[in-house]
Amino acid sequence: MNDNIKITYPSSEKVYMNGRIYPDLRVGMRRVSLTPTVTIENGEKKMTENAPVYVYDTSGPYSDPNIETDLKRGLPKLRKPWTDARKTGDTLMALAKRGIITQEMEYVAIRENMNCAELGIETHITPEFVRDEVAAGRAVIPANINHPEAEPMIIGTNFLVKINTNIGNSHQNSSIEEEVEKAVWSCKWGGDTLMDLSTGTNIHETREWILRNCPVPVGTVPMYQAFEKVNGKAENLTWEIFRDTLIEQCEQGVDYFTIHCGIRLKNVHLSQGRLTGMVSRGGSIISKWCMVHQEESFLYAHFDDICDICARYDVAISLGDGLRPGSTHDANDAAQFAELDTMGELVERAWAKNVQAFIEGPGHVPMHKIRENMDRQIEKCHGAPFYTLGPLVTDIAPGYDHITSAIGAAMIGWYGTAMLCYVTPKEHLALPDKDDVRTGVVTYKIAAHAADLAKQHPGATIRDNALSKARYDFRWKDQFNLALDPERALEYYKTSNKTEGEFCTMCGPNFCAARISHSLKDCDR
Amino acid sequence: MNDNIKITYPSSEKVYMNGRIYPDLRVGMRRVSLTPTVTIENGEKKMTENAPVYVYDTSGPYSDPNIETDLKRGLPKLRKPWTDARKTGDTLMALAKRGIITQEMEYVAIRENMNCAELGIETHITPEFVRDEVAAGRAVIPANINHPEAEPMIIGTNFLVKINTNIGNSHQNSSIEEEVEKAVWSCKWGGDTLMDLSTGTNIHETREWILRNCPVPVGTVPMYQAFEKVNGKAENLTWEIFRDTLIEQCEQGVDYFTIHCGIRLKNVHLSQGRLTGMVSRGGSIISKWCMVHQEESFLYAHFDDICDICARYDVAISLGDGLRPGSTHDANDAAQFAELDTMGELVERAWAKNVQAFIEGPGHVPMHKIRENMDRQIEKCHGAPFYTLGPLVTDIAPGYDHITSAIGAAMIGWYGTAMLCYVTPKEHLALPDKDDVRTGVVTYKIAAHAADLAKQHPGATIRDNALSKARYDFRWKDQFNLALDPERALEYYKTSNKTEGEFCTMCGPNFCAARISHSLKDCDR
Repeated sequence: MNDNIKITYPSSEKVYMNGRIYPDLRVGMRRVSLTPTVTIENGEKKMTENAPVYVYDTSGPYSDPNIETDLKRGLPKLRKPWTDARKTGDTLMALAKRGIITQEMEYVAIRENMNCAELGIETHITPEFVRDEVAAGRAVIPANINHPEAEPMIIGTNFLVKINTNIGNSHQNSSIEEEVEKAVWSCKWGGDTLMDLSTGTNIHETREWILRNCPVPVGTVPMYQAFEKVNGKAENLTWEIFRDTLIEQCEQGVDYFTIHCGIRLKNVHLSQGRLTGMVSRGGSIISKWCMVHQEESFLYAHFDDICDICARYDVAISLGDGLRPGSTHDANDAAQFAELDTMGELVERAWAKNVQAFIEGPGHVPMHKIRENMDRQIEKCHGAPFYTLGPLVTDIAPGYDHITSAIGAAMIGWYGTAMLCYVTPKEHLALPDKDDVRTGVVTYKIAAHAADLAKQHPGATIRDNALSKARYDFRWKDQFNLALDPERALEYYKTSNKTEGEFCTMCGPNFCAARISHSLKDCDR
Repeated sequence: MNDNIKITYPSSEKVYMNGRIYPDLRVGMRRVSLTPTVTIENGEKKMTENAPVYVYDTSGPYSDPNIETDLKRGLPKLRKPWTDARKTGDTLMALAKRGIITQEMEYVAIRENMNCAELGIETHITPEFVRDEVAAGRAVIPANINHPEAEPMIIGTNFLVKINTNIGNSHQNSSIEEEVEKAVWSCKWGGDTLMDLSTGTNIHETREWILRNCPVPVGTVPMYQAFEKVNGKAENLTWEIFRDTLIEQCEQGVDYFTIHCGIRLKNVHLSQGRLTGMVSRGGSIISKWCMVHQEESFLYAHFDDICDICARYDVAISLGDGLRPGSTHDANDAAQFAELDTMGELVERAWAKNVQAFIEGPGHVPMHKIRENMDRQIEKCHGAPFYTLGPLVTDIAPGYDHITSAIGAAMIGWYGTAMLCYVTPKEHLALPDKDDVRTGVVTYKIAAHAADLAKQHPGATIRDNALSKARYDFRWKDQFNLALDPERALEYYKTSNKTEGEFCTMCGPNFCAARISHSLKDCDR
């Protein structure tokens, strides 16, 4: 594992934009070059240039031909000079509350806007706006001071909708090398954050390799490692074991922790009347502990201590939804909403300690019950960002749950969810392989982007319009190059097209609507 | 092509329900048998039966082991005795308006409800309700008297959401045999209707093979064949050529025609300012004719004649949306809505002639503009069923357009669209092969079913709940057998699971949330 890994995209160039407040900032993005439109006017060929399209880029240094990467050495430590200059406890939220715009804040403002200014597109996303959103808890920049390799990104309703990729080995499957490969692979296709959910052996070592080589924030569920330490016996867990695990992972550089602090002893029984009980691993483990000891969860009892630890490293907390529904039948029930109420209480306690936090959401929800989830989360959790798993809108399609969940994800993203946790075709059936990760990430980029369009995010339509124009112009290569997955688009095209022409095999030359449509111009009298 | 084709589903049996008004009716459905739930109570193994699940079945005689099919002979002529007893011009709509409940009407009522009565689930779908919906034009039963092989099905907001599959060869691709195979394949996976969009040679012969062997209604775009007759020169089309084509296809047994009668000479120019002009083949052809001749379209001018022909055979009209947007940019624009207004006028003229009709819709629409499409269609088209192509909610994912469109399809289905035209992964790139048809149909079954759940259709949750219970019970085979695509679910499961156990490789034994969740019961004190 020491190859100089490269990520490439067709007709694309890695470009950087500089800061205004911090002129040394270099915010990477991808610029896709397009070919000219060719028209015939008065019998003469006319070429009209098409402006390049800027694309939000999660591939980090891997797509920069001038940077030599080395998995053994790890990525360049981009953020180290910034955090070195800060005092202990100076979390991004604390600084934002004091009115300070950090490098991370200007970085994400530039990253979200890309070339909107150049195109004359108005945007609400200024460094000042970013600061205010972070200060108010409405947005989160997950950025452990010990993960300086990660490029800053922001999670919040008023920003581009983000997606998370889950990877990780279990006792049954896969190697460290495969997981690191999947991590880089996820970044290639557009994953904004990455959760390492490993539960097998070598949890620590796997995570180390991932962290040192991951250009996006990394999240974990620390309970998984704590649970390994007690050999899978929930009742043997203690606060001390959990605390030590947290510190170990903070030291390594994990950017956000999913912790199921919302499970209360008094609420566990609410899951018992359900069709599918509890489907959260972390949630079921801590529930078991509560029931065996008949005691309030140590995650809830020690929540302030957890926040103190997180604040030292500027780690964000993702309040895990241990009581999320595992079927459309159990959606929006008393168990789920009782936990949401607790989360609303906890998020304010996190903010009081200057710890950034977001709230995890379902799961499985039929379409007519999705809106209630979003509205209730905003109300109960005071505008903290929502981070949902799908939701799946039906349970009858194992093997296609990237699709059942993308429907719900797009909708809840439109309604205000800030980050969508991807689901792969293997959900409920097996662990995803590399191709599943690609399909899952691209599917979720679709859901997130559809939500950005519906929310009318500044500049969101640029890529759609450029691709549609390329399609109508018969500029096939531009159409592929602007696609979320250029390789697959080209591969499918090639199954039945031998040449690039002014029609395709779907319709043949005479039946091409676009061709006939173009010819209508000549009929205009 | 004379094999005895069989369609099989795991642990499933073909069963029939009889009519009340017409006791001889035999309405086929699929009954999935489940294994018992095993629990340990007081140290003893306890088995609890799980009721079989009835599934709406589009596979016709192919899944009945007692019927020998033969492609050369065609399927049994189920509806022939019913239509033979009627008078010319006795369309289903005419009969419904006279208060008569036909065999088709009782058939679809039984088919929609399946075993709801047995389960004590209330349903609004009675034969009387079906009759009233058909009479009012709010629902359509496409059933050409010359396609007696098709099993009756109903398209309307107050019924299960249906899906249509497009197949058909072009000048560049595929054989008759392949198309017939795709037709049966589509019925296997759940396609409710089938459009033969062939534009190549052998249009008539391909259609004949499909019609005689298709257990679901078949639609066409007659303009494609008319256009072949004038060698692809739009300006050479005439009403007479089109009329003769209509009659030819009526005689063969086509159940519904997409005709782009909504294109008016005065509106064609509205498409010229668009990003992607016109993307409907039928629409662009007739627009070209209008522009060259500077004359009102003969489809519009002869609409009453078209209705008279359709009424003779009880063929339904699908008012094609020639001005549908070809990109999210062009959604909900003046061109699209001008055509919708014309359709609203035409649908009333069709009803006056007792011709059933529905309205085609887009296409490409970002999420926040979907609702307006549905509401406006209901208003302008007087409650006639809406039949949409997707819509795709973003344009940036060629290769994944079954997904971009399933998002829009699920939403518009929930809002009231009666039938969804499928989109395959090859959309915009190439013609679909068999595997694309399967993926497209299953993806659209997901969208349609998600809409049924959101609309709270009687009995819609039965299959979801049964599958979820099987999942939570670790009854893996039941989970697969209840899935929309049992074969794919099993195939994915096998990639990393060697045995059927009380956990899977995703979590391993200790990390299985469902297992821990079950064990919580023992902690209850």
